[in-house]
Amino acid sequence: MGSFRGHAIPGTFFITMGIWWTIKCTLKYACKKHKRTSYLGSKALFHRIEIVEGIVIICMALFGMLAEQFVDEGPHLALYNYKEGQWVQLLSWHHSTMYFFFGLVGVVNALRLIISSFPISLNKLLLSNALFVEAFILYNHTHGREMLDIYVHQLLFLVVFVTGLIAFLEFLLRNNVTVELLRTSFILLQGSWFWQISFILYPPSGGPGWDSVDHDNIMFLSLCFCWHYALSLIIVGVIYAFVTCFEPISSGHLCMCQYVGL
Amino acid sequence: MGSFRGHAIPGTFFITMGIWWTIKCTLKYACKKHKRTSYLGSKALFHRIEIVEGIVIICMALFGMLAEQFVDEGPHLALYNYKEGQWVQLLSWHHSTMYFFFGLVGVVNALRLIISSFPISLNKLLLSNALFVEAFILYNHTHGREMLDIYVHQLLFLVVFVTGLIAFLEFLLRNNVTVELLRTSFILLQGSWFWQISFILYPPSGGPGWDSVDHDNIMFLSLCFCWHYALSLIIVGVIYAFVTCFEPISSGHLCMCQYVGL
Amino acid sequence: MGSFRGHAIPGTFFITMGIWWTIKCTLKYACKKHKRTSYLGSKALFHRIEIVEGIVIICMALFGMLAEQFVDEGPHLALYNYKEGQWVQLLSWHHSTMYFFFGLVGVVNALRLIISSFPISLNKLLLSNALFVEAFILYNHTHGREMLDIYVHQLLFLVVFVTGLIAFLEFLLRNNVTVELLRTSFILLQGSWFWQISFILYPPSGGPGWDSVDHDNIMFLSLCFCWHYALSLIIVGVIYAFVTCFEPISSGHLCMCQYVGL
Amino acid sequence: MGSFRGHAIPGTFFITMGIWWTIKCTLKYACKKHKRTSYLGSKALFHRIEIVEGIVIICMALFGMLAEQFVDEGPHLALYNYKEGQWVQLLSWHHSTMYFFFGLVGVVNALRLIISSFPISLNKLLLSNALFVEAFILYNHTHGREMLDIYVHQLLFLVVFVTGLIAFLEFLLRNNVTVELLRTSFILLQGSWFWQISFILYPPSGGPGWDSVDHDNIMFLSLCFCWHYALSLIIVGVIYAFVTCFEPISSGHLCMCQYVGL
Repeated sequence: MGSFRGHAIPGTFFITMGIWWTIKCTLKYACKKHKRTSYLGSKALFHRIEIVEGIVIICMALFGMLAEQFVDEGPHLALYNYKEGQWVQLLSWHHSTMYFFFGLVGVVNALRLIISSFPISLNKLLLSNALFVEAFILYNHTHGREMLDIYVHQLLFLVVFVTGLIAFLEFLLRNNVTVELLRTSFILLQGSWFWQISFILYPPSGGPGWDSVDHDNIMFLSLCFCWHYALSLIIVGVIYAFVTCFEPISSGHLCMCQYVGL
Repeated sequence: MGSFRGHAIPGTFFITMGIWWTIKCTLKYACKKHKRTSYLGSKALFHRIEIVEGIVIICMALFGMLAEQFVDEGPHLALYNYKEGQWVQLLSWHHSTMYFFFGLVGVVNALRLIISSFPISLNKLLLSNALFVEAFILYNHTHGREMLDIYVHQLLFLVVFVTGLIAFLEFLLRNNVTVELLRTSFILLQGSWFWQISFILYPPSGGPGWDSVDHDNIMFLSLCFCWHYALSLIIVGVIYAFVTCFEPISSGHLCMCQYVGL
Repeated sequence: MGSFRGHAIPGTFFITMGIWWTIKCTLKYACKKHKRTSYLGSKALFHRIEIVEGIVIICMALFGMLAEQFVDEGPHLALYNYKEGQWVQLLSWHHSTMYFFFGLVGVVNALRLIISSFPISLNKLLLSNALFVEAFILYNHTHGREMLDIYVHQLLFLVVFVTGLIAFLEFLLRNNVTVELLRTSFILLQGSWFWQISFILYPPSGGPGWDSVDHDNIMFLSLCFCWHYALSLIIVGVIYAFVTCFEPISSGHLCMCQYVGL
Repeated sequence: MGSFRGHAIPGTFFITMGIWWTIKCTLKYACKKHKRTSYLGSKALFHRIEIVEGIVIICMALFGMLAEQFVDEGPHLALYNYKEGQWVQLLSWHHSTMYFFFGLVGVVNALRLIISSFPISLNKLLLSNALFVEAFILYNHTHGREMLDIYVHQLLFLVVFVTGLIAFLEFLLRNNVTVELLRTSFILLQGSWFWQISFILYPPSGGPGWDSVDHDNIMFLSLCFCWHYALSLIIVGVIYAFVTCFEPISSGHLCMCQYVGL
């Protein structure tokens, strides 16, 4: 994955999920608040949406794992090269493992609404698990690299770890819309930071990367990280405002969807 | 901001806010406890106060950002000097970013009482966010400085981080007056520590700064930090005692204010 | 304990307990959910089971302590060798101490159902205590060893510490089946990681251990750790599915057990 | 305080408080459980006990502060020696500051039952505060000392910090007897560890201290620390058992006390 594309793909994935989760959770909150009467109906709709969401996540995770394994320079499922006596492409295996845990989230998301005896909030717990595993792998991911490279991955580790904590808190609190929006803003931040990393380490212009031992670059990046966060907060705020404003219309649409059986 | 004034201004800001929040939250608590009858009336008053508070915070944050950018040695909104190939005044940009996040708190404080569909406690969450961002920036703020300088900023980091944790706890618990007072005491501590920093690093007498490699100075400062905390606890206690004693009078005043429509 | 057997025995112990706790807590949850009528009856049964469990844990802990002390190269209860002026086999004493704290869990588990005035959840608290003590000792266990050895013990420390946190959370929340299953999955992980350690440091094939200064080995082990975790999550999931499916049958069996007075 | 006595005095203080708090909180719990009828009466008694307790804590803290300042080698309230240009006895000032914060706990303990408008649980919060301040000072207390000295103080820091966390948890949870007993067991551990430190660093036999660079000593001390903890857990358990067994008798005594107006 040591390439522009390799960081841009998960970035796109997290930005998409972040925006989608923000919309979904704002809608859910708005529905709950205003239309208690038809709430049960839209609940059934939300269930169907979550099953679809689960399947989409599974597909994304499978795609990620297969891409990591079977691109040209990938390990092709080989773990140890006995001839040369060394591990094969451990970084790709790291990425595959991360994708696998996100795949588990998708599986539980899809199953828990089909099978009734599932403990509630299990999907939140598994999401938090997947994030912690991602943070753990990122922490052990940058042995022997250069300062700038390590620093941008440390920031990534920070955001993933905090997102894991927030998801765990969500699991404990249940139905706290503010915490959910906080999580989606961190998911957005993670996505946009992935993009930032790909631009820093593998400039698409083909030019040389940044000077990796300049302290000023480090100080600028910590600043840049805050701006990404401010941006993701503002995006979440704007989505929230839009959905809340157009909720009467969208809820009408929802009801319509319901009637036509989507 | 590397000057006496640069540290004294945020110090004054935090001390003012700390004292004001202590008074407000004690008053709120006393009103809730004693005069349940006229509570709704004073609630409307508190709402108006909070909108004003929000606007004041926005103004302070804007003033801070503009001052950081447009003082003589400031970056004047330039981020990168292409001619010399280096970043322009990153420390000033750091400070501007901190002010920006506090500005967000002000915006939410003002908006949440105008717009009804805001999730509750969002302002607490954003305050905690602003403090965590401040802590994050402070942590990355002292690359390549001297031991004493680093140490006083580490203590600042500690107090800001803990304040962020307490504000987050407040967001989770809601309406726990003890936790609120704990937060205000930490805000006061932060303000007075900013003043202490400006006296240590930029002595206004014009004399030389402290010996920055003496271990005894470090040990004294950790002591000094505790005394600042003791002082801020005592100030909060005294304000609490005053407000609680004069509450019958002040609440009468409040009611009067209400009637004249302030 | 610096041997294959020394790491495999606690590994087996934790895997057994992990599987048993998963079955027990799933059964408890299923009973609570479906058969409220006969719940009191099965509660009495569960009490008897927990007393047996406590006695089993005590026996295991005693066996561990005695084995550590009285194997050939053990300290035989001697702590300080005055002749040579040095401590005797401190590592064995470390292990004995860990076993002792798990023994305390067993004692409380057995007592709390016999004596009625016990505070509830005390056994959860002591389990969390035993895990934290284990983590503390593991943290101070690897002075002066090689990198690989330290790393596998650090991972063990990580899993034990996190399990302690989860057990403490369980103590605070009470009766949250998801958190209980999370804990059992971490107990399983701990057990299987003990086995992994014994295979890495003392290969039973008699061949040489792994290259202990190769960074790639470290990166592979962090990966391997995640796979162990994935495996233990899947095992817990499968047990949960089995027990929930066969619950009508097993609960019938339980009732039968009750009638015959087991 | 760098002496046997200097560590033994706070050790005795914490052991006394630990045992007393264990007895008090077990009694309170037993009273609440069994004699709901006369509960109000004993509540008044408990209030009076807590005021006395507060006064005792204030006296102890005052005694500690004065002793630190006015022993022969103490600073006698001088902070900076302008003649020699150096700080005077900063370690003694450290200790005085710790005592001061415990004094605050005593003040609040005494006041909160006299003045009715006190927020509840404030004393728990201040206890936790005092412990955190103690931990903070201990953390900055051992610049430039030897390994063994640093290690025993690090362990002390660990136990004080954890006690602070538990006291804060108690503040949040309120009336959870298990958490209270956990705290008292840690207070006991702190006391006995103070004694251990004084025996290690200033052997009363007058002989030389321990070899301060031997890794085996470090490993033994981490073990020893666990045994202290086991001991304090057992002491708390025994006290709990005694008080619960003799509760009918002691509660009769309590009632008697009440009638004679103690």
